[in-house]
Amino acid sequence: MKYSTLYKSTLLTNIIPFWEKNSIDNEYGGYFTCLDKTGKVYDTDKFMWLQGRQAWAFSMLYNTVDKNENWLKLARHGIDFIIEKGMDKEGNFYFSTTREGKPLVQPYNIFSDCFAAMAFSQYAIASGDQKIKKLAKQTYLNILKKKDNPKGIYEKSTGERPLKSFSLPMILSNLVLELEAVLDKEEVDKTIDFSIHEVMEVFLDKKSGLIYEFVKEDGSHEDTYNGRLLNPGHGIEAMWFMIDIGVRRNDIKLIEKAADTIITILEYSWDKKYGGILYFMDSEGKPPQQLEWDQKLWWVHLEALVALAKAYEHTEREELMLWYEKVHKYAWSHFSDSKNGEWFGYLNRQGEVLLDLKGGKWKGCFHVPRAMYQCWQSFENIERKTL
Amino acid sequence: MKYSTLYKSTLLTNIIPFWEKNSIDNEYGGYFTCLDKTGKVYDTDKFMWLQGRQAWAFSMLYNTVDKNENWLKLARHGIDFIIEKGMDKEGNFYFSTTREGKPLVQPYNIFSDCFAAMAFSQYAIASGDQKIKKLAKQTYLNILKKKDNPKGIYEKSTGERPLKSFSLPMILSNLVLELEAVLDKEEVDKTIDFSIHEVMEVFLDKKSGLIYEFVKEDGSHEDTYNGRLLNPGHGIEAMWFMIDIGVRRNDIKLIEKAADTIITILEYSWDKKYGGILYFMDSEGKPPQQLEWDQKLWWVHLEALVALAKAYEHTEREELMLWYEKVHKYAWSHFSDSKNGEWFGYLNRQGEVLLDLKGGKWKGCFHVPRAMYQCWQSFENIERKTL
Repeated sequence: MKYSTLYKSTLLTNIIPFWEKNSIDNEYGGYFTCLDKTGKVYDTDKFMWLQGRQAWAFSMLYNTVDKNENWLKLARHGIDFIIEKGMDKEGNFYFSTTREGKPLVQPYNIFSDCFAAMAFSQYAIASGDQKIKKLAKQTYLNILKKKDNPKGIYEKSTGERPLKSFSLPMILSNLVLELEAVLDKEEVDKTIDFSIHEVMEVFLDKKSGLIYEFVKEDGSHEDTYNGRLLNPGHGIEAMWFMIDIGVRRNDIKLIEKAADTIITILEYSWDKKYGGILYFMDSEGKPPQQLEWDQKLWWVHLEALVALAKAYEHTEREELMLWYEKVHKYAWSHFSDSKNGEWFGYLNRQGEVLLDLKGGKWKGCFHVPRAMYQCWQSFENIERKTL
Repeated sequence: MKYSTLYKSTLLTNIIPFWEKNSIDNEYGGYFTCLDKTGKVYDTDKFMWLQGRQAWAFSMLYNTVDKNENWLKLARHGIDFIIEKGMDKEGNFYFSTTREGKPLVQPYNIFSDCFAAMAFSQYAIASGDQKIKKLAKQTYLNILKKKDNPKGIYEKSTGERPLKSFSLPMILSNLVLELEAVLDKEEVDKTIDFSIHEVMEVFLDKKSGLIYEFVKEDGSHEDTYNGRLLNPGHGIEAMWFMIDIGVRRNDIKLIEKAADTIITILEYSWDKKYGGILYFMDSEGKPPQQLEWDQKLWWVHLEALVALAKAYEHTEREELMLWYEKVHKYAWSHFSDSKNGEWFGYLNRQGEVLLDLKGGKWKGCFHVPRAMYQCWQSFENIERKTL
């Protein structure tokens, strides 16, 4: 089977049906995301990150794959819940609510806002709904307003040793393209320039070629737990955002640099003993804080597949295809659940399933369908050229 | 070798020398706790939990084992740092500071206060210092004041679904005995009554015999991630606090119930596949939130050794000794580092060392020396009786 066919058919006949069938809360609105290996709901709390991500996924599929009215309806189902139950009076988004939508955890996490903004923007494109389009812009502006103190009153650091977090420029580089339809051209260009600079010049370390999770205000490194932290999946994911920007700007140097970085990160973080990409590492080889550092996570491997497919698509460098094959073999044989559908999320270092959930507090309808779609598209392009 | 000799000699010739040699910051005061497998400092941040715990350990050894002036001096070394650098103007304790003592993370965690209070109380006994004695009481009263909202302004829950946490009555049951010398008899008795009730009647589930980490205000269970959470090590540790109270009150029924609970928890949480006690479990067998759920932690196993030794000491039930032998065999062969001394803290499910640190953000000079001392004492009593 051609890779493009594998990704397309897995997306359309396995992944999407899994979420259509199991995740819709017809009684209270929104989506269930805590689904066991068979798709059965095991917890009914609603996490705003995942509500936004799923509404985004169905809107994106409607916009790019097929004008399927059920997808639009299911996207609206999440959008309504987010607006009615997930948003506070100031336009911030709760971290979680009860099944019925009563707020459980305060809006301390700016990524809830980011995924809401992405969902609103894709849904506005899908539906033409002007109110939602306005809300997308409003949410984006609120994110910018909060970006220098994203946790607000819930910030526990004293500010004594301020570090910049990679998450923010990384997500902005994706968010700005997602929100292009609702933003001024000037804002888009400015934010793209900012995020290329931050990602490729500040967080990408010139010496090692690796991406650090936290750097000092002046871009230098700090010899502390956070200052030494590497999150290989994050770095690799950001590289395909950079490739998307490179394609848009016709900037082959940016694409080549992103491709180099993908390989450097993979060489550093590939587990030589058991295969797979490690979750967290310490740049000095010191013991990381994260007890789960040696686990193999679904999203890390899916982001690597997307990044490698895109990098190969645009550079045709053979070593990228060799890496692609290596990650493909590991990911498809370990995460994909041939019995009950969808992908497992969490493996131990040895590659055995550690938690057999299909969705939970952090895993929802997002990385799997997005990666399936992105790889499908890239391989269609790759295969077209090799005909 | 007799068990009492094993614990005594390990404490005095291995564990304590390791911390005496490697953890003292002679330049800025306080203790380094981030020590690699050989004892080398790999990070210099200071975590107030661990500063308090180490000052407590050296004071306790001075009070119970030997009037060793160096131990008293090393205890004072930590006490001074905690008072000068770890405490804010309201008498709350920062979570962490830089090596020099500049506050890094705000006082959001009441356990920093608990361990400071324990350290002050033991040190006051050791030194006769009346100022420190006063500070111990003051800190204790501040803990009581904060106990219904321990995170204060850093609390992210909306209060929509309030749950009581087991940690608090559990630590109070130990804290009140530790602070007996500085508190009124009435306060001590009241707090002991409160914690026996909470631990043995509210958090100990009558049906399963297990201890839940969180229950509703009315003591019933909630079918949510937190409501289903079991932390076997916590439950077992609390049982030896209950046995200490039982001995003090000459309450054999309390001791017997604690012994039953230790066995019930061990039967439930012992890893039938690889041995050792699991870190977190879900009471309904649903996927837990904690990715590290299957790991084997040093403190869990040490607390189990203490609990089983004490329970056997006071009940002489054979099944407790059988369980003791089982946990002993696992713990001493997996955690104890015969090459570089001290114990490893974190193993993967298979029992291999996951992080080879001897100290870090959460592991310091506390569980190992405390358990060595407690087991030494219990086995001296057990062995005396069997002569």
